[in-house]
Order: sequence, then C-alpha cells, then structure tokens
Amino acid sequence: MKNDLVLRAARGENIERYPVWLMRQAGRILPEYRAVRASLSGFKELVETPERAAEVTIQPVDLLGVDAAIIFSDILVVPEAMGLTYEMVEKRGPFFPNTIKSESDFEKYAQVDFDIEDRLGYVLEAIKITNKELDGRVPLIGFAGAPWTIFCYMIEGQGSKTFSKARKFLYTQPEMAHDLLNRIAEVTVRYLKAQIKAGAHMVQIFDSWAGILGNAQYRTFGLKYIEKIAEQITEVPVTIFAKGAYAAVNDMVDSPCNTIGLDWNMDVVNIRKLVGETKTLQGNLDPCALYASHSEIERLTNNLLDSFESKRHIVNLGHGVYPDIDPEKVKTFIKTVKNYEI
Amino acid sequence: MKNDLVLRAARGENIERYPVWLMRQAGRILPEYRAVRASLSGFKELVETPERAAEVTIQPVDLLGVDAAIIFSDILVVPEAMGLTYEMVEKRGPFFPNTIKSESDFEKYAQVDFDIEDRLGYVLEAIKITNKELDGRVPLIGFAGAPWTIFCYMIEGQGSKTFSKARKFLYTQPEMAHDLLNRIAEVTVRYLKAQIKAGAHMVQIFDSWAGILGNAQYRTFGLKYIEKIAEQITEVPVTIFAKGAYAAVNDMVDSPCNTIGLDWNMDVVNIRKLVGETKTLQGNLDPCALYASHSEIERLTNNLLDSFESKRHIVNLGHGVYPDIDPEKVKTFIKTVKNYEI
Repeated sequence: MKNDLVLRAARGENIERYPVWLMRQAGRILPEYRAVRASLSGFKELVETPERAAEVTIQPVDLLGVDAAIIFSDILVVPEAMGLTYEMVEKRGPFFPNTIKSESDFEKYAQVDFDIEDRLGYVLEAIKITNKELDGRVPLIGFAGAPWTIFCYMIEGQGSKTFSKARKFLYTQPEMAHDLLNRIAEVTVRYLKAQIKAGAHMVQIFDSWAGILGNAQYRTFGLKYIEKIAEQITEVPVTIFAKGAYAAVNDMVDSPCNTIGLDWNMDVVNIRKLVGETKTLQGNLDPCALYASHSEIERLTNNLLDSFESKRHIVNLGHGVYPDIDPEKVKTFIKTVKNYEI
Repeated sequence: MKNDLVLRAARGENIERYPVWLMRQAGRILPEYRAVRASLSGFKELVETPERAAEVTIQPVDLLGVDAAIIFSDILVVPEAMGLTYEMVEKRGPFFPNTIKSESDFEKYAQVDFDIEDRLGYVLEAIKITNKELDGRVPLIGFAGAPWTIFCYMIEGQGSKTFSKARKFLYTQPEMAHDLLNRIAEVTVRYLKAQIKAGAHMVQIFDSWAGILGNAQYRTFGLKYIEKIAEQITEVPVTIFAKGAYAAVNDMVDSPCNTIGLDWNMDVVNIRKLVGETKTLQGNLDPCALYASHSEIERLTNNLLDSFESKRHIVNLGHGVYPDIDPEKVKTFIKTVKNYEI
C-alpha cells in the first residue's frame, strides 16, 4: 500500500499527517460521476454494475486526492438481499413497496439463509475491480448500514422525519424488533466479512438514524447490534458512525471498534477527553462549511485541526458532502488538511 | 384561575401535583378535532377562523383533562405576516412558493413595519374567545417559532432533512442572516406581547430545527435571538423548547426564561443537575411511548416522574403527540401524572 495513512490512523499507529476523505466523495459533487450516472438508467444500475461502481469509487482518488476510497454502493442493498426490494425515487429518496408489518413477513422479507455471493456478488466484484485499478494507491473502505437504520427502512418503507412506525415497534413488539435486528446483524456480519475477503481494507458501519432514539433505547436496540457486528469483525479496523447519537458516544468508549465517526454537531474536544488514546476519531467539519469562501474553508479546517489533542484522527466532514458543493472547495479542504503540520 | 398549576410550576412556586399538557394536544388525535377540520376547507382556514380555532383549542381541556390550553395556530403565521405566504400541502407539510434569496427580497418578504393586529388579529381574536369560553378553568399558552426555525422556512421554503440552504447562508452571508434573524425576532416580540395582551397566560418559543446546528453556530444564530425575545417578555412566564439542541442546554441555564422544554432524547437527571432550582423543566416522555399498552404507559410515566429531583416540572411529551395515537392512551398518561404523589 503506497498510502496507508488512514489504516495507520485507525490503528493508532504513527502518522506523518492527518489522513482525509469525505463521506459521499464518490457522488454527485463530481461532474465525472454525473456523466457516468447519466449514461445509465439510474442509481441502482450504477450500484449493480461492478465496472461502473469501481470507476466512480476511484474518481475522487484521482480528482480530489483523498487518502481513501469508499466503495460506491448503498446501505439498502442489505434489506434488498433479505427480500425487500427498494426503488430510488428521484428527489424523494428510497422507497420500499413492501414493508415488514409482523413476524409472518420474515420468511419473505427478512431472509437470512442465502449466500452473500449470490445476492450481493456485484458489490464484492466492484471491490475486486476497484482494488485492481487502485493498485495499492490508497486503502478501500467497505461499509454497511447499522441494524437500527436498516430496521427503520424495513418497517417504515421510506425516509421519515420521526420514524414513528419503526419506533412504535420498539414499544409494541420489542421481541419481534430484537428478532429482526438480530437477523439484520447476522446478514451484515457475513456481508462485511465477504467485503473484507474481496479486498476491503477497513469497514464503516453507518447508523444514519441513531439520533431519533433516546439514549436508553439506543443502547438496547441500536448500539448493542452494532457492537455485536463489530466484535465479529476482527480482520480489519472498524469505524462506527452513529449520526446524532450524542449521549451514546459515552457508551462507545467501550465498543469493539477502532474509530468513532463524529457528526458535525459532536464536540471533538470533549469526546477526545472521554476516549483518551483508546480510539481514533473521524470527522467532523460541518458539510455546509464547504459553501464558504476558500480562505474561510482554510480557516475553519485549521481551527478544527487545531482542536485535536491527539494524532488518532481521520479528517472527514461530519456528514456526507452535499451534492451542490463546488469540487474546488473540496480540494481546498483536502489541501488544508494535507498541509497541516502535526 | 381555577387551575393555575402550570403557571405556579413555571414560576417555581409550590404545587400539589405535577401539571401536565401535551404539545399538539389540539389536533388530529381527537375525532372531535377531525370533525371540525373536515367541515372547513383546510388547515389554514381553521387557523384563520377565530371561533373554530378557539373551539379546537378547548377540546383537549374538555376531553383529555389537560392542565393548560395552547392556542391552536401555527408558527408559520409569522413569516406569512412578514410577506411570505405559505400553503399547507396534505401529507407533505408547509410550502412557500417564494423564498428569500438575497437582502433585496427583504422589502417584500421580510417586512417589519406592520401592525400585528392588522395581519395577525385572527390569532389574537382566537385567544380572546378561548379565554372567554375557558372561563378561568386552565391557563392559555401562546406561542411563536424561534427566529432560527422561521429563518429556515423563509430560506428553504419547505421542510428538509438537512436545511442545507439555510445553513449555507450562515457561511456565505452571515450578516444578511443576522439581519433577517433580527427582523424575525423584532416581529416575534411584538407578536408575543400582543398575544399576552389578548390574554395568553404564558408563552412558549418553539425552535424545531435547533438540532441541525452545531453548538457554536446555534449560540450565534439560534439561542441569541431566542434570548433577545425572551428578555423582552417580562409579563408572563416564558418557555424555550429547542428540539435537539443537546449541547445548548448548558447555555440555556443562563437564559432569560422560566422553563426549558426537553425533547425525549434529553436527559432530565443531568439537566436538573445543571439548572438546579433556577429553572422549571418541561417534558419529556417519548411520544412513541403512547403506542405501548396502558399498563406500560403507566410504568413509563411513573419512571419518568420518579426521575425528577425537583418539583419544578411541567409534564409533557418530548415532542408533539403523534396523530395516530389513541386518545385513551393519552388519558392514561394524564391520569398517571395526576395520580402521582409528589
């Protein structure tokens, strides 16, 4: 590996400078991505076509100079593999024509007895092609959604401000909720292990809807299942990104992960005090900061880096980069990180 | 006033039991509300027809036995009065055909030089009718949106997961953002004072989108303007409800308000330690808890009440009651609070 900064930072080894990458770096911010996307029927065709998925995965390495690639895919490939097909509706997001209403739906829509290679082989193939083309330039990150977030989609069928249907289940059918979360966790472990076998050098678990649960419920229905997954992934470094789980960060100190991803509202200084040198932190510039001028982006990025009290840090935004951000602004962010002396 | 428990709790005076009311108690949970709503052309007609607004305001007092009424209205009447008309789109929420794109839009869409009675007289009239019909049974709460939340709608034009357009403004046009927030705050002070003059016995400021800003930005663009309003409202007790502003609760300890509203993810015990006996806390049962069985609702409510270390508490949900909650479940919640010995 020519540039293994991200891996060394994740393991708490020495680094010469902070590594940097961006969530959603392979995506709509790049005109080169939009060109590939326009040549296909839609988002799902891109996800399911390994050669093209690999191509857009590598674009930000070539064009932006990030220190890691993250495989172009979607967290919803897992519920789909379990039997719940989704559609990606332009401007509205994902939509599942069917949802899970009771345990009797499990056989059809929450399957576990299938071969990962059979149903998610296209992701594994994309990982292999990407690594071949990357040729060791930077590490490749694999990922999956956290069971709670996948559960939300399987119950709710689409995005929601409150995910009240999913949360209702926790009060009315807690046992069924645990059964379903267990099923998702089981499949996710096998899926992540398959990604690692195919060539992923580290993995990240995204819990996009962590923030809609109170702390006690998040511990029971959220973090517990992430930890169940993470403790089985011993091959490569694991990152947990639980967006909005402000209180749960305290609990993550003891989680079996290398890196805690921080959203832009989380307080790096306080969280560093909590974790000491036991964890790497990842994040957390406000994605909206990239709307500012180049000089302001430099200032804000340097401010963030100045606040680190440890070298165990992977620089990123606190959320996926917004699609209307000018790639030149992203480059300023990346350049500022690369020029920063630690 | 026959039952002034809410007011006494807000002022930190002695109470015999905890008072209880629910955000969105006047609304779709009640079949009686839906009947009134169905007899009119839509949500806005209801908001703008004082007799009917008063009627649905009083329904939960009669039907559920809450300890306070809150005037039936919407936070978006303020931007509308300032020149930005909104539509309430079924199942999608509010939509503003026009939005503020630059300071040159201020004259048309961010007006301040108008008479509150002229443009928002229907709310004041509804308050007067409500009080007459309530005849001192319980206090009537007035309210307004916080400047940051109103700003979000004026810039974004509709709900959003990220409110990235509104947040972009904070980075690209901070001075214009402050100008607009000042304008909203100025109108809001006059609006709340008019509500109080019309008969509101206390007021609540709702900052629904507080949680999308990091702590430093929320202090600068959010809390600052709430405090600016609150310090000018000296006539009646003031409640601040800044949903999702987890870090900002620390800053609110010194805010010129009587009561801090807590969402269901906020930690009552820790926040009580922070504020001591200087503030009343309001909240914060998870609204989804009302999907549970009657006995489970009792247990969860008693657990919450057991966690209070002070009598300075107004019991509520941590968010508006969800429209598909069975009113009988709400009654169980209310009865449990009323039966609790303090």
